[in-house]
Amino acid sequence: MKEIINKYCEYRQKIRSYSYALTFLSWDSSTVAPKGCFADRSNYIGVLVEEQLKIVKSKEYQDIVTTLYNNLNLLDEDLAFEIKRVKESNDKNNKIPTEEQVEYEKLTSLSQDVWVKAKTENDFSIFKPALEKIIDFKKKYCEYVKTDKLQGYDCLLDDYEEGLTQVECDKFFDTLKEKLVPFVRTVLAKKVNFKDKFLTDYFPVEKQKEVVQYIKDVMEYDMDRGAIMETEHPFTSGVNNNDVRITIHYYPEMMTSSIFSAIHELGHATYEQQVDSKYNNTSLSGGCSMALHESQSRFYENIVGRSHEFWETHYPKLQEIYGDYLKDYTLEDFYKGINKVEASYIRTEADELTYPLHIMLRYELEKKLINGSISVENIEQEWNKLFKEYFGIEVDCPKNGVLQDVHWSSGLVGYFPTYALGSAYASQIYNAMKKDFDVSEALKEKTTGKINKWLKEHIHQYGASKYPQDILKMATGEEFNPQYYIDYLIEKYKKIYEL
Amino acid sequence: MKEIINKYCEYRQKIRSYSYALTFLSWDSSTVAPKGCFADRSNYIGVLVEEQLKIVKSKEYQDIVTTLYNNLNLLDEDLAFEIKRVKESNDKNNKIPTEEQVEYEKLTSLSQDVWVKAKTENDFSIFKPALEKIIDFKKKYCEYVKTDKLQGYDCLLDDYEEGLTQVECDKFFDTLKEKLVPFVRTVLAKKVNFKDKFLTDYFPVEKQKEVVQYIKDVMEYDMDRGAIMETEHPFTSGVNNNDVRITIHYYPEMMTSSIFSAIHELGHATYEQQVDSKYNNTSLSGGCSMALHESQSRFYENIVGRSHEFWETHYPKLQEIYGDYLKDYTLEDFYKGINKVEASYIRTEADELTYPLHIMLRYELEKKLINGSISVENIEQEWNKLFKEYFGIEVDCPKNGVLQDVHWSSGLVGYFPTYALGSAYASQIYNAMKKDFDVSEALKEKTTGKINKWLKEHIHQYGASKYPQDILKMATGEEFNPQYYIDYLIEKYKKIYEL
Repeated sequence: MKEIINKYCEYRQKIRSYSYALTFLSWDSSTVAPKGCFADRSNYIGVLVEEQLKIVKSKEYQDIVTTLYNNLNLLDEDLAFEIKRVKESNDKNNKIPTEEQVEYEKLTSLSQDVWVKAKTENDFSIFKPALEKIIDFKKKYCEYVKTDKLQGYDCLLDDYEEGLTQVECDKFFDTLKEKLVPFVRTVLAKKVNFKDKFLTDYFPVEKQKEVVQYIKDVMEYDMDRGAIMETEHPFTSGVNNNDVRITIHYYPEMMTSSIFSAIHELGHATYEQQVDSKYNNTSLSGGCSMALHESQSRFYENIVGRSHEFWETHYPKLQEIYGDYLKDYTLEDFYKGINKVEASYIRTEADELTYPLHIMLRYELEKKLINGSISVENIEQEWNKLFKEYFGIEVDCPKNGVLQDVHWSSGLVGYFPTYALGSAYASQIYNAMKKDFDVSEALKEKTTGKINKWLKEHIHQYGASKYPQDILKMATGEEFNPQYYIDYLIEKYKKIYEL
Repeated sequence: MKEIINKYCEYRQKIRSYSYALTFLSWDSSTVAPKGCFADRSNYIGVLVEEQLKIVKSKEYQDIVTTLYNNLNLLDEDLAFEIKRVKESNDKNNKIPTEEQVEYEKLTSLSQDVWVKAKTENDFSIFKPALEKIIDFKKKYCEYVKTDKLQGYDCLLDDYEEGLTQVECDKFFDTLKEKLVPFVRTVLAKKVNFKDKFLTDYFPVEKQKEVVQYIKDVMEYDMDRGAIMETEHPFTSGVNNNDVRITIHYYPEMMTSSIFSAIHELGHATYEQQVDSKYNNTSLSGGCSMALHESQSRFYENIVGRSHEFWETHYPKLQEIYGDYLKDYTLEDFYKGINKVEASYIRTEADELTYPLHIMLRYELEKKLINGSISVENIEQEWNKLFKEYFGIEVDCPKNGVLQDVHWSSGLVGYFPTYALGSAYASQIYNAMKKDFDVSEALKEKTTGKINKWLKEHIHQYGASKYPQDILKMATGEEFNPQYYIDYLIEKYKKIYEL
């Protein structure tokens, strides 16, 4: 058994080396790579993917995994869990022809650049052909991997949150619709007069960068195991707890954007930096599932970063950095501004309360794209129609609509629902944390150290060594319950909007 | 034949894909990678190198190359040249055990970080164990690849400049010693009173970056196929003419450093950006040899960038950007300052005239390290002793001495001589260029376009499709002749120093 485990570890290291290279090529593509490189980059990536697949699909490796899978009881708990996941992933993987996987990787490595171009030129037609190919692949993919239990769009949901189905999503979103949507209407109808011009005032990018540096320290992000760069769309990229990087986008006339995308991405990064080192270089490093990952970023972004307590301590520093730019705004102005509820175009800039509506929209469209009831040809109109229905306003241009997200261009279809689910997890986790210590007081501290510590102990340290549902249950003492999310939102916004 | 050529191209693409990934991992290591990542990075790199070597050393690939090599007359000129070089490289490669190559790649990928640490802490003992391993490998390497013609240090010289030997180097450096060293002494003895405090005055890094942006435009560097970042030691990294990047280091109290390292690296980058596109994704892309590459960077750095004519046009812009910081210095002050001859510690900051002495020192030490007459154990003392002998001053600390260069940490032993050779090539090329047009007038133009064009036509376009000696001969009409270098230097510095 020991010999076969060693052999497995050798293969794992080999397979991970390709992923490692591909991760950094993708990081490079999103950060410093010049436009010109994309002409041939996808070919090189194609070769590396093909070489990796050759190893993953090799008989020897598959046999090793199967042997270990048939002897799970002889393995330690972590390795047994890892083998179980690898086996499942192999079984899925084996159903897809290698050439198609390679083509798909080449396609998505090219498409991100096409999407940037389309967004820059504000023209969906530039991106349409690439998106058509991606959706076609996704449909074929669903056909390949379908089982008795999983069909169509379920296969994609399952890729990002194992076991998540349309039935569950529908149930979750229906609950939100039923309980939150009337509340959102009440909030939107309430006449308020927030002093919030700072939201659209000019704030120098250099100063915004200073703020991000400050926030990074408040959140105790370890720069010896991280990096911060600039990209069109902020994201986090990690290989294990030794190297977890984030990116930010700075808008001179949307100062809060860099603050909250920094807190959000640093939330993801804190998760991965706090995974137990023993999982480095195994398949159990990194976050556990997309929804759990998102629960951490949203916990920091909203529950920490949009709390009154947090800014009681940090707003003076913000005022110090921004000087005259912010001197006319009180803490109360700032707090209300960053929690202002609005029907707005951009998901990533949306307030906490309308955020789930943005996700519902994407969920509805993705379901229909995959089941074929709408096509990429008319996705732009469908987006705009649904947006009008949910938000009551007209989309003014594609980059404020269908072109706003990077996800589809990199093949992430079925991923959005995990965002809303993550927000709901975050509220449930918040509730559990409050039983252990006074979170309100902890939020007022100079750093988020106490909160980081609790999250490390109850969630982060485990990495991907358990199922997300199990981690959630261990951390909160109960199954997933969206009621915490609804209660949290209604309580918070009732206070802010004096309802 | 066509089939076997296609098969070769497939292999070439596969092999290049690994190099491609490794290039960007190395780029990442030198630019944004956090310290923490180096613990496991070298293992991942090791796997990729091993996988690549497996392909390079596979019987099928070797047979394909041999078959093509035996039928060179049936191939077009470019492919025939490529196969010839690949065959030579394979033959060399085959002599080294794969495990040792992999170990070596892992070692050098780790050593660069160790060197940075040693340099930062100004402590050679931190770097010594890594350097010992590198030199040990290099010695074993020479044993593996030696032939009747090539022995010892010659094997390393040959890696960077095919056919270059100690005999030739000795001859070249002896000529320089004989004719230049007395002149250098005369110059150093001359009492001058240059107004050159700007060389050590404070200039804000932000302003220095503006200057680099300006210079990049003057040199017509194409940012759509390039990028500029910051690193400890400036360098150029390219994969083909679609992606050639440079890095700069900014010293607040050495403003000219960023100017001349920018011009130098942009010289390298211009070379690679101007290679004919038909060579992209073949082994003939990029520069032809290290000395020819260096001839281009030094051509731009010294012949262009340290010329009076160039600054007649661009000094006003420099004064505009630096405002009060530079207002007290005239063009003449600036010109004399940037051409001031001094016995100084740092090679990369050295003036044109003493530069070859820095190379001679490294050449002497490398020769002795490889033939075993000195060891890494006492390299620091040997460096300091020789430095005193050549420059008449004592090295004050290791980062101003033996720790200053990145080269040895990345395994570049036998590389330095190409720098001096490159400078000499540059003068010969300058002489040829002057026969075709009035270079003095061209230097005064708003951009270096005319000069770029000539270099593209006579040198750059060919990439690595010919031997460097042949390109030099085609471009200048004669064999290498170091006299042009000596004449150029003596004429220039006689004028500046009024001798």
